[in-house]
Parts: sequence; C-alpha cells; structure tokens
Amino acid sequence: MKNRVRLDLYVQEGYSRGRSGLIVLLWWLVQSTAFRWSLQPMYAWRNWLLKLFGAEIGIGVKVRPTATITYPWKVKIGEHSWIGDHAELYSLDSITIGNHCVVSQNGYLCTGSHDASDPQFSLIVNPIRIEDGAWLASDVFVYPGVTVGVMAVVAARSTVLRDVPTNEVHAGTPAKYIKHRFETMEEEVPQRTKLHLLKR
Amino acid sequence: MKNRVRLDLYVQEGYSRGRSGLIVLLWWLVQSTAFRWSLQPMYAWRNWLLKLFGAEIGIGVKVRPTATITYPWKVKIGEHSWIGDHAELYSLDSITIGNHCVVSQNGYLCTGSHDASDPQFSLIVNPIRIEDGAWLASDVFVYPGVTVGVMAVVAARSTVLRDVPTNEVHAGTPAKYIKHRFETMEEEVPQRTKLHLLKR
Amino acid sequence: MKNRVRLDLYVQEGYSRGRSGLIVLLWWLVQSTAFRWSLQPMYAWRNWLLKLFGAEIGIGVKVRPTATITYPWKVKIGEHSWIGDHAELYSLDSITIGNHCVVSQNGYLCTGSHDASDPQFSLIVNPIRIEDGAWLASDVFVYPGVTVGVMAVVAARSTVLRDVPTNEVHAGTPAKYIKHRFETMEEEVPQRTKLHLLKR
Repeated sequence: MKNRVRLDLYVQEGYSRGRSGLIVLLWWLVQSTAFRWSLQPMYAWRNWLLKLFGAEIGIGVKVRPTATITYPWKVKIGEHSWIGDHAELYSLDSITIGNHCVVSQNGYLCTGSHDASDPQFSLIVNPIRIEDGAWLASDVFVYPGVTVGVMAVVAARSTVLRDVPTNEVHAGTPAKYIKHRFETMEEEVPQRTKLHLLKR
Repeated sequence: MKNRVRLDLYVQEGYSRGRSGLIVLLWWLVQSTAFRWSLQPMYAWRNWLLKLFGAEIGIGVKVRPTATITYPWKVKIGEHSWIGDHAELYSLDSITIGNHCVVSQNGYLCTGSHDASDPQFSLIVNPIRIEDGAWLASDVFVYPGVTVGVMAVVAARSTVLRDVPTNEVHAGTPAKYIKHRFETMEEEVPQRTKLHLLKR
Repeated sequence: MKNRVRLDLYVQEGYSRGRSGLIVLLWWLVQSTAFRWSLQPMYAWRNWLLKLFGAEIGIGVKVRPTATITYPWKVKIGEHSWIGDHAELYSLDSITIGNHCVVSQNGYLCTGSHDASDPQFSLIVNPIRIEDGAWLASDVFVYPGVTVGVMAVVAARSTVLRDVPTNEVHAGTPAKYIKHRFETMEEEVPQRTKLHLLKR
C-alpha cells in the first residue's frame, strides 16, 4: 500500500499561535533562562514572568522552575494551584486551571493533535479544562478537549482520554472510574452549612 | 532465593557502538550545545550536524532542538519527516525512518535491552523501522525490533511491543488494533490514477 | 458540587526533608552543575558527590549524569548497581537499592503522594525497596511503598503499584505477573554449590 501522507504540503491554515513568532521566540528564551534558572521558592518571580507574557495567574499559584508553558497567553490558572516539576502545559489551545488544583510533576496537558485521516496532516487543537480542587498526580497525560471536573483525581501515570466527572477518582491507560474521592459531604461540614447545601 | 545477577561481570561482548569512544563523546558534547541551543527554525543546521556525524537525512526533515539521537551514524531518516521535542532515538541498533513520518514530542524509540535470563545481563539490540507516512503521536514508546508499517498510526501515550501493520491505528499499553486509518483509497484519487493503482 | 480542597491551608506537618533548606538548595545546585555536566565515565566523581551529601553508595555503582536524586541522604545503593539516564529517585522517603540492580533510563521511583481524602491534601510518603539483582527496565514508574524483590524484572514502560515477588517478571500498567525470570536454579550451578544451597 502506497503512502498517501504528504507532510511537505502541511500548512497550519486557520490556526493562530496568538502572538507573533518573535514573541513566541522571546518567551522560549525567557522560559529556558530567567524562568528555569530561578530558585524553587521564587514563585512570585515566575508568576510575574508568566503574566508578562499574557497568562492569567491567581494569588498563591506555585509553578516550579522546570515546568514548561508553551504559550502563556493561552493559559489561565486560578488561586492556590500548583504546577509541578517538569510538568508541561502544551497550550496550543487554551488551558484553564481552576483554584486549588494540582498538576503534579511530569504531567502533560496536550491540547494539540493532527487529523490522521487527512493526508496533509492538518493540526487539530482542543482546549483542556481542570476544575477547582482537581488533582492530576505524577506523570498524568491529558488528551486534547478533556475536562477534569471539580475535585476529581487522576492517579499517577494515567492517561486521560475522556472527561473525568466531579469528585471521581480515575486511573489507568485509558483512565477509568475507580471510586469517589470524598465519600460524603457530611464530615467536617457544620449543620448550618449542610442545611444550606441541601437547600441549593 | 539468592541473587544470581552479576553486573560486575557485565561486558558488551560482540556489540559495537559503531564509532570510537572519542567520537561518541564529541557527538554528545555537540548535541548538548550546538544542537540543543539552536533556535527551533534552524532545522538545516541540525540536519547538517547529524549528517556530519554519519546520519542519513533526507530533504525537508525537521528535527527539534530538544530531540536526542544517541548514535547518529545508526540513524536514517527519509524526506519530509519530523522528530518532535524531547523525542529520543535511542539508536544502539539502526533506526530507519521513512518519508513523511512523524515521531511526535516525547516519543522514545528503544533499540536496546538486556537478556534477563543471563546472570551477566548481556546487551540485546534490535533495529526499529518506521515506514513511510507513519505517525507516532506524543509520548509513544517503541520496543526493540518493532516495525511500524506504511501510514500506520500509534495513539498518544501508547507502548508498541509488536509490529503495527500498514494503515492501522493502534493504541494502549500494549498498543492494540483500533481501526484502519484511511478507510478507502477511493477518495481524492482521480480515475486515471485509480486504474493505474489497480493494474500494479 | 462545591470544591472542598484548600491548598492554601497545606502544611507538611510531621514531615522532615532530613536536611536544612540550605543543604537541599546546595545539593540541587551541585546536582544541576558539577553532577550533571560531568562526563559519562566519571562515575567515581558522581558517587563521591552523592556520598558527600549523605548517600550510601557501594563499590562499582554507576549513576548516569542526567539521573536525578532528590535527597541523597535518604538513598542507599548497594554494590555494582546502575541508575540510568534521566532516571529519578524521588526520595522524599527512603529509597533502598540492593546489589546488582538496574534502574534503566527514564525510570521514576516515587516515594511521595498526598491524601486525596484530606481537603488539606496532606503529604504521604512511603519508602521504596529494590532488592538484589532486580531490574526496572526503561521508563518504569514505581509507586510509593513498593518492594521489588530479589532478581525481579519489570518490563519497559510499566507502572508498579504492588510489590513484585522474587524472581518474577511483571509488565503493564498496572504491572502484572508475566512469568518467572530464572526458570530453575539447576543450570550453571555446579553440584557442590547446589547441595550447599539445599542445605541452607
């Protein structure tokens, strides 16, 4: 069977990186020097650099120096969230991370793919959304278009192909439902708050 | 049960890296400096360095600066193929990549292993072959001796233990058949060409 | 469902890194310079650096320059063992590696996790133990608390969630039993030695 794929005809028609090639290059230079070589506790410095290049970063966010953010201007991180060592936000499309989220070390959020049925291999991008309180443990790979719901957990070394619903723990390749994270809302919730929750 | 493994008796008898230790060292120095620190669009420069160290590289090949090629003199890449960021061609044995192939970011082509049944842990190497138009998506791991056929696709984060036949899409760990890539040859093929194909 | 996770209340109560923040920082600086930039054959130099920072390292140990050891003072490696390129000993808790062991390239020994059922996300650490003659092939991920038994083998790209018994070969994610490594103790064992073994 003769090859039909023609990468010499590849064009990223209709796709925009969101900034000029010069800004992209400048960010990569900054990221591989001022960002990467900063000491671990210098979270404020790295947040400042990310915001300088268009990222939205909430208070208390902790991004490790070896983390990689492809295009910061497509990234939004809420308050008190953590991005671990060597984690990569491959933000060809938007990556939205909520409050109190953790992307542990070596995690990979992949918003880009290609149309395998197109001989010209056209680029496909889809946003990724990590909602409040979710935790992607070490070395988790997230496919384009996936939403990880509020307080959801993905176990270490898993691969997430489909959305993970609120408060569920998923594991494996592909990641599948294992159990619920917080069994009940009862514990630690004072009576008054509970009534309030029930009324909603 | 007492340990029988004796790594102090390990020797790479019968194996050759293909160049002297000095050349190997020199390549690693070049790769971690002139190669790695080059700007992303400098594909021609990196191809030149690879060819200088014995690789066969076709026209239009795009190797990212963070890709790692262990021994370039054991690597052959056809025309218009891409090697992504942080992909590694661990070429203890030969790695042959055809035309219009993609090894996406973080891919790992592993030609080396060890004989686990040998207390001296002897080295085993086996060539890897990626045929025309094949695509290894992000973070795919390929075992020694594997051939990925013409236009075959391996989904992101998969582990390839066995050959992937022509035009098939495989996924998972270990990677298994999912579907065919191009359903028919009909579409986009003008009548004249189709007749020509049928006659072959 | 409203998020209950509160990373702003995170504290590592009861956990000690084992050295002052200054020593930790100093090690990371040494590791990313004098250690990482050393030439591959300079195993003695890297062993010396590891021992300087409190690691116990036996004779003949070979740690590659790109390997990462988080806290050397929590790491113990026996004689003639190998730690491959880009392997990481994430030693928040103790990592004990026996004699004649191999942790191949890109392996990850993860002693740290978090209590997902605790809204304050408390740190959980558990030691990892790799016993004599065991081999973790390329890109194996080991969960906290796991023991890999004497001469056990874990196939490339596997994820180890549970203990691997002596002399067993496990593979996959999660890693499962495949076969025994050394079928019998008969071969290569001279009669005198065999009797000796039986008498023990």
